[in-house]
Amino acid sequence: MEVEKLTTLLEKVKTGEIEVNEALQSLRTLPFEDLGFSKIDHHRQLRTGFPEVIFCEGKTDSQVAKISEHILNAGHPLLATRATPMMYEAVKAIHPDARYNELGRTISVIQSDKEGKDGVLIISAGTSDLPVAEEAAETAYMMGCPPERLYDVGVAGLHRLIGNHEKLLQARVIIVVAGMEGALPSVVGGLVDIPVIAVPTSVGYGASFGGLAALLGMLNSCASGVTVVNIDNGFGAGYSATLINRLSDE
Amino acid sequence: MEVEKLTTLLEKVKTGEIEVNEALQSLRTLPFEDLGFSKIDHHRQLRTGFPEVIFCEGKTDSQVAKISEHILNAGHPLLATRATPMMYEAVKAIHPDARYNELGRTISVIQSDKEGKDGVLIISAGTSDLPVAEEAAETAYMMGCPPERLYDVGVAGLHRLIGNHEKLLQARVIIVVAGMEGALPSVVGGLVDIPVIAVPTSVGYGASFGGLAALLGMLNSCASGVTVVNIDNGFGAGYSATLINRLSDE
Amino acid sequence: MEVEKLTTLLEKVKTGEIEVNEALQSLRTLPFEDLGFSKIDHHRQLRTGFPEVIFCEGKTDSQVAKISEHILNAGHPLLATRATPMMYEAVKAIHPDARYNELGRTISVIQSDKEGKDGVLIISAGTSDLPVAEEAAETAYMMGCPPERLYDVGVAGLHRLIGNHEKLLQARVIIVVAGMEGALPSVVGGLVDIPVIAVPTSVGYGASFGGLAALLGMLNSCASGVTVVNIDNGFGAGYSATLINRLSDE
Amino acid sequence: MEVEKLTTLLEKVKTGEIEVNEALQSLRTLPFEDLGFSKIDHHRQLRTGFPEVIFCEGKTDSQVAKISEHILNAGHPLLATRATPMMYEAVKAIHPDARYNELGRTISVIQSDKEGKDGVLIISAGTSDLPVAEEAAETAYMMGCPPERLYDVGVAGLHRLIGNHEKLLQARVIIVVAGMEGALPSVVGGLVDIPVIAVPTSVGYGASFGGLAALLGMLNSCASGVTVVNIDNGFGAGYSATLINRLSDE
Amino acid sequence: MEVEKLTTLLEKVKTGEIEVNEALQSLRTLPFEDLGFSKIDHHRQLRTGFPEVIFCEGKTDSQVAKISEHILNAGHPLLATRATPMMYEAVKAIHPDARYNELGRTISVIQSDKEGKDGVLIISAGTSDLPVAEEAAETAYMMGCPPERLYDVGVAGLHRLIGNHEKLLQARVIIVVAGMEGALPSVVGGLVDIPVIAVPTSVGYGASFGGLAALLGMLNSCASGVTVVNIDNGFGAGYSATLINRLSDE
Amino acid sequence: MEVEKLTTLLEKVKTGEIEVNEALQSLRTLPFEDLGFSKIDHHRQLRTGFPEVIFCEGKTDSQVAKISEHILNAGHPLLATRATPMMYEAVKAIHPDARYNELGRTISVIQSDKEGKDGVLIISAGTSDLPVAEEAAETAYMMGCPPERLYDVGVAGLHRLIGNHEKLLQARVIIVVAGMEGALPSVVGGLVDIPVIAVPTSVGYGASFGGLAALLGMLNSCASGVTVVNIDNGFGAGYSATLINRLSDE
Amino acid sequence: MEVEKLTTLLEKVKTGEIEVNEALQSLRTLPFEDLGFSKIDHHRQLRTGFPEVIFCEGKTDSQVAKISEHILNAGHPLLATRATPMMYEAVKAIHPDARYNELGRTISVIQSDKEGKDGVLIISAGTSDLPVAEEAAETAYMMGCPPERLYDVGVAGLHRLIGNHEKLLQARVIIVVAGMEGALPSVVGGLVDIPVIAVPTSVGYGASFGGLAALLGMLNSCASGVTVVNIDNGFGAGYSATLINRLSDE
Amino acid sequence: MEVEKLTTLLEKVKTGEIEVNEALQSLRTLPFEDLGFSKIDHHRQLRTGFPEVIFCEGKTDSQVAKISEHILNAGHPLLATRATPMMYEAVKAIHPDARYNELGRTISVIQSDKEGKDGVLIISAGTSDLPVAEEAAETAYMMGCPPERLYDVGVAGLHRLIGNHEKLLQARVIIVVAGMEGALPSVVGGLVDIPVIAVPTSVGYGASFGGLAALLGMLNSCASGVTVVNIDNGFGAGYSATLINRLSDE
Repeated sequence: MEVEKLTTLLEKVKTGEIEVNEALQSLRTLPFEDLGFSKIDHHRQLRTGFPEVIFCEGKTDSQVAKISEHILNAGHPLLATRATPMMYEAVKAIHPDARYNELGRTISVIQSDKEGKDGVLIISAGTSDLPVAEEAAETAYMMGCPPERLYDVGVAGLHRLIGNHEKLLQARVIIVVAGMEGALPSVVGGLVDIPVIAVPTSVGYGASFGGLAALLGMLNSCASGVTVVNIDNGFGAGYSATLINRLSDE
Repeated sequence: MEVEKLTTLLEKVKTGEIEVNEALQSLRTLPFEDLGFSKIDHHRQLRTGFPEVIFCEGKTDSQVAKISEHILNAGHPLLATRATPMMYEAVKAIHPDARYNELGRTISVIQSDKEGKDGVLIISAGTSDLPVAEEAAETAYMMGCPPERLYDVGVAGLHRLIGNHEKLLQARVIIVVAGMEGALPSVVGGLVDIPVIAVPTSVGYGASFGGLAALLGMLNSCASGVTVVNIDNGFGAGYSATLINRLSDE
Repeated sequence: MEVEKLTTLLEKVKTGEIEVNEALQSLRTLPFEDLGFSKIDHHRQLRTGFPEVIFCEGKTDSQVAKISEHILNAGHPLLATRATPMMYEAVKAIHPDARYNELGRTISVIQSDKEGKDGVLIISAGTSDLPVAEEAAETAYMMGCPPERLYDVGVAGLHRLIGNHEKLLQARVIIVVAGMEGALPSVVGGLVDIPVIAVPTSVGYGASFGGLAALLGMLNSCASGVTVVNIDNGFGAGYSATLINRLSDE
Repeated sequence: MEVEKLTTLLEKVKTGEIEVNEALQSLRTLPFEDLGFSKIDHHRQLRTGFPEVIFCEGKTDSQVAKISEHILNAGHPLLATRATPMMYEAVKAIHPDARYNELGRTISVIQSDKEGKDGVLIISAGTSDLPVAEEAAETAYMMGCPPERLYDVGVAGLHRLIGNHEKLLQARVIIVVAGMEGALPSVVGGLVDIPVIAVPTSVGYGASFGGLAALLGMLNSCASGVTVVNIDNGFGAGYSATLINRLSDE
Repeated sequence: MEVEKLTTLLEKVKTGEIEVNEALQSLRTLPFEDLGFSKIDHHRQLRTGFPEVIFCEGKTDSQVAKISEHILNAGHPLLATRATPMMYEAVKAIHPDARYNELGRTISVIQSDKEGKDGVLIISAGTSDLPVAEEAAETAYMMGCPPERLYDVGVAGLHRLIGNHEKLLQARVIIVVAGMEGALPSVVGGLVDIPVIAVPTSVGYGASFGGLAALLGMLNSCASGVTVVNIDNGFGAGYSATLINRLSDE
Repeated sequence: MEVEKLTTLLEKVKTGEIEVNEALQSLRTLPFEDLGFSKIDHHRQLRTGFPEVIFCEGKTDSQVAKISEHILNAGHPLLATRATPMMYEAVKAIHPDARYNELGRTISVIQSDKEGKDGVLIISAGTSDLPVAEEAAETAYMMGCPPERLYDVGVAGLHRLIGNHEKLLQARVIIVVAGMEGALPSVVGGLVDIPVIAVPTSVGYGASFGGLAALLGMLNSCASGVTVVNIDNGFGAGYSATLINRLSDE
Repeated sequence: MEVEKLTTLLEKVKTGEIEVNEALQSLRTLPFEDLGFSKIDHHRQLRTGFPEVIFCEGKTDSQVAKISEHILNAGHPLLATRATPMMYEAVKAIHPDARYNELGRTISVIQSDKEGKDGVLIISAGTSDLPVAEEAAETAYMMGCPPERLYDVGVAGLHRLIGNHEKLLQARVIIVVAGMEGALPSVVGGLVDIPVIAVPTSVGYGASFGGLAALLGMLNSCASGVTVVNIDNGFGAGYSATLINRLSDE
Repeated sequence: MEVEKLTTLLEKVKTGEIEVNEALQSLRTLPFEDLGFSKIDHHRQLRTGFPEVIFCEGKTDSQVAKISEHILNAGHPLLATRATPMMYEAVKAIHPDARYNELGRTISVIQSDKEGKDGVLIISAGTSDLPVAEEAAETAYMMGCPPERLYDVGVAGLHRLIGNHEKLLQARVIIVVAGMEGALPSVVGGLVDIPVIAVPTSVGYGASFGGLAALLGMLNSCASGVTVVNIDNGFGAGYSATLINRLSDE
């Protein structure tokens, strides 16, 4: 930590050990992170409780295990996304309490007993959207906001969504996960007056172009109050929803 | 008409005026349209009553007037799409009964008193989609199927659509016109069991890319029974809907 | 079924067992599907005879078998699309009459002896388009409209199409399946005056971009009366064609 | 209001004036909006204070004036986006307190003296992004959250952004408006732990493709907590930011 | 002309006026065009008779006139494409025999009486494709191959094309101009065994994307023997067709 | 063959066995292929000697072998493109003279001793373009035009191309195969006055987008006389080049 | 300047006027620009002599004049890009020495007599590329590197480029400006061993898609040593070329 | 070598053995590479020390080994990119000093002891960008400019970049490698006044479209002095950076 270094410098100025000009020069060349924003960065980690999330795609099983061990030893909670069952085995060998969400492809370990905060609702259109929805759910859960789930309520069967309107009314922020034409966020956005985060999924074929159709649909939503994250980015949606849900704490 | 020519040929064969081989040669080089399908083509016009629709874009006012005069003199009904008010003035000078649909930008003259056939319903999402919806409406009307209209029932205010479900249940074929995310056809398609023709409009901005977002959304509809026409192609939708609606005549 | 529940409620109002205000409250919170549209939904299934179609892509063999068993036990007909031969084996183990369409990659079981209705014609451009054409054919067949087939009549050899014009004239609705430049629907649309449903396929290479070329070609068809479904969506085309063909029943 | 109608119906059941079966039938056909969600819709307007926002593009001056008059007469606040100076003149003739934001192209009238709520910060990258930033600012202001502004702090001159980090730390939600490469939201997102709403603008030339480059950049942001709205959609960003900022009220 | 310079150099070598080494050095640094290919370039102009074609877009009327004067004074034939009527007036003032093709937007002057060579056939799908077809026609004509024309024979009315099959059989090379879905070259290519040059036009709307649909359609043609030029590039098609047609001279 | 049928019909007319009217009716319904163009089709095959080319992609080894056997038994030459070595083994088992071009991935059998015709030159930019170049070469060879080859002369090393200008001057038609930026056809087109057929290849990475960069480059060639075929379509280029080269026969 | 403020702070520490802890706190919240990089920023301006370049697009004439006046009064050189003749008139009224480059659309005023540095060569393919080439030229000139020009040497006429190879050999960095297929940078890159900066222009039509074809071509260049800037970004190319050319100073 | 041939020719002219006209003819047909630029090409290789770089993708292990042997036997340094570990084994069997950069996937052998030149700095945004960064690093190293590295300094954690500003100030040219939104080059470009070469990587998912998002972001950089190479083209960036860095030698 560079605070000591800075304190030492100032004290030497005080004692006249070094000159003001000399100190000025040192201050100019001090790495930036020793001042100002490094503090922010520190606070941020304390508040979110998330020093690092492991994005497993492109990593080997042992790499995932190694990074997990490092995080767990530091007493931090663990969240690894896009994890394979074999990665899970590798992590479980290190920490027996590791939990695997097969649908959401996440590995996680909670290392605190802080109570969660309600308010996040996750809605998905079809069963094929569940992996992304569950990634969002696990992220929100690990960040302290265990979510409510409302799955398989696509726009081609509206009565399923409308029949659950109580759930919509109880939420503070809603994540809507949908592939194909991505119409569900617009419908949900028209029924509530709280923030809606839309997650397009790559579910679909032909002219869905890997989720592009759903992405464009959501960006062009005729309902106000809808913002969008990247295709299949359940993690990002869960993260943002948690930031929003926490606001009512302050 | 080439039937005479063909009859003459056969009669000459009969009378021995020309040889079989010679006749065979003539038959091989006779233009195709003298046989088979030219008949189809003829029947088609009789049935649809639509020898020609004028697509006005890129034509001058006087060109539109001239073609209109030609059609009207032949005793045919007139339909001109993408017409400006000035084109209408030019046509009206020729035929005082010419009618202008300002929203739909169509000029039309009916020259028969055949009764229309119910069954076509046209639904639009927003007020900006009306020009395309009205183009479809005029087309259906001129082809003998005066449509029912249900406008401004976008997905962000579902109660307006659902509150009119009687209209949906009375239709035989539904045209759904929508821009932005193009979600309405999916919702409508989920509520009915009749054919739905989706028309994406170029309404929107930014990442709507001139209607591409709506087009992709509709092609990827999660509701079965939805087919799609080109962006802003109200005419095509009205035409197809009429062909479908007429089937129950047979 | 919630009709009983509603009847009971009204009877309690009648007998004074519960107050009007109290009943009002109950009515407000009754799930939507108990009223209005749930009926539609119900009717729809009865009419189409299709409570569920299994889209097999992304499912395991045993998942497909399990869902199939559930559908068959309910006495419903079975249709599974994008099915592998191994999925078929799994389903056949449950129901010996299961039929596999190798080209169309569908598994099906008919559980009624209702007679089919003619009128659907399926045309394909090349031999590589057959999987999509057969998916459409099986869908139409399972929904009660055994289709006529006219295959391998691409635009580069027009005489094959024109030589079969009788088939075109006998249809009520035509599905045209084509890849590469997707020109066939325009040609067919110019020869008939009935609805044409165009299905672009992902057949082609280079700048076909997975069916995009065919899709754009069909959307821009110069022939009126052509509507389009998603790339390779044989099921959607078969479904829509059946809805159209049935209209003449009413 | 349909509640009376429903109460009357129930009372008639109570008094035996109508039969249970008959009432059941009436309930099934009652328009949906008379129940459940219409209430939501009503509440929503009350809470947001925003019965309608006028999107002026494609409307005539007199249309804008007419709709404005309608809204103002109802005692509602007025917000019109994408408004030209001439539209403003037309509205001002009706209501002398109408205010025009030249940069943001908005017309507005406040009709209440409710105190605003702090917490929304709007950051823009360049001077050409100001129209979109100001549209967002006016929207937030009119919805009750007068925003803080931090303009012209693009990533090519980071010291301007970092030199204002106090503002970042005081916000509850941040809107970041940027064109060209759209990098600013990532930088901001890395400095804070609150929700960031990114707005791509169509500012740029060549391969910016009307804002597509910025849009893709923001969707792919390496910073967590960033969600995105459509290109140039300042209104949508302001609307969502207000929904988020209000959460701390509850 | 640099031949003299080279001759002089060699003669100096011969007379010993300069040394071999010195000459070698000069040869190395002689501009390339003085050797080898400049001859090709020269021959090429002689053969084609086309030293320069003026692409008028983006030029002023007086610039077009000035370049035209330069070409005409050199005794060359003149061809200017994408020319406006006002440009024509400017050129006509210089050379009274200048001819303007209104549809094709070309200005031309023939300055020889060499007889043309038959064999180029130009086919167009719709009336809106005529400007491009006529640009191709004028190019072929000016390069010595007065083309045959077969216009307005789109695929939605096949009998018009097939009824003119004599024209197809008499051609040596065919240019096919089509917008919208661009299907005509495939149909033509299937009927003949000579080279077909396809020209996509920007005619169309919605998802034609300025001719992209037609371009992709033509590139994916299922008929062999079809090659493609850029959208609206009538000049390029006429040029290539002439090069091909001339081959039978050799 | 339907000629007999037609002859019989005419003879019956001659003998009065059937009436003229009756014959007229029969003629109308005779399949089209019995007249006119079927002859063309027949002639075409005779001239090109290519009744069918096998596109092997997506076919099994035994399917390829079976179709090959059918073609060979009919005494036709064989050309199979995109063939794997295993397909070759399967064909070789049927016909010992089958030849495999490993680079071009073609199987071929010549069944005539007609002499070939010079004039086709195939140029390729890099070694990775060879598979496409060789597919073009085999096609031209099998259609009777054994091509000259000039490989590995990309624009980044112009001296290799220019050093072989003799070859360019001796050709009647040139195929240019190039990936990456696709610049070579423009350079070649600027050096010759004969038709140039450009073939973009999918060689490249990153923003080459599977050959799109090369395709667009070639379509926008600044050299006149360049036409383009689909990405990797060596067969199409070889086919078109042969059609062009043959013209000098007539 | 904040150095004083910092000095004062340190002096107060020295004199004990404030405590070390207190000083530490102040240092943490001092705006970043007071330290480190603001110096860099300052140095940068001194070295480049370019405090601000005016991008005129979207600015009014008087805005351009006003900003120009501000820059000139500060004694800085002036460069305004994308300037109209009327903007020039407005600037000239302020400073009589203002110079307008009509082709390059730049306004400039030099306010020093520092000698320029040779080494930048600007090559353009066609005459329509000149505006972009001249924007690059003016930028290099104003930044102290008066460029050599080699214009109209497109790849379809290679001898013009090769005939000027002396110019290529004398340059230290080359800018190559080209539209259409964008092939020229590859050819130039193959002839030299110095950095080449490629500038795609929006010149072209049809499938050039506003410069996309040229951009992709350049990014996929088969020649090493080529880097690319945005479409039509002559300023960026001139700026980068100058940074490179200056390196030999150090 | 053709210089002898040319000398012989000139000597024969001198001795009168051949006539001037005859010599002229020979000179015209001499292959181009015997003159002028072949020298350049030769010089180029000598200077860069890079006669050939092996792009391993699409080559077999033994092909890579064979080409490597050829290069090494000629005494040249070896650089092979996109190489697999197995290719390395194959090369190592030939030359025991072959070095494998696992991250950068390069094989290399230095065959000289020339000292390297400082000045190239390579910056990468994330750990997934390292393969591309290391490819660039190895290229620069092998071309004589051992680079400085500054890795994992993405824009979401600016303090890491700013804390290393000394490294930025010491460089003469900077390569910035980044995927996802590609924002880092803009930030770096704003901090320095030297050339920045941006390399987009295909790192990312969803709407990163294989690096397109990063590529567009970099092309639209708001910082001057940034040029771009193709997606994942570490080699190209290293090559260009070396050419730039060498300029200060002259």
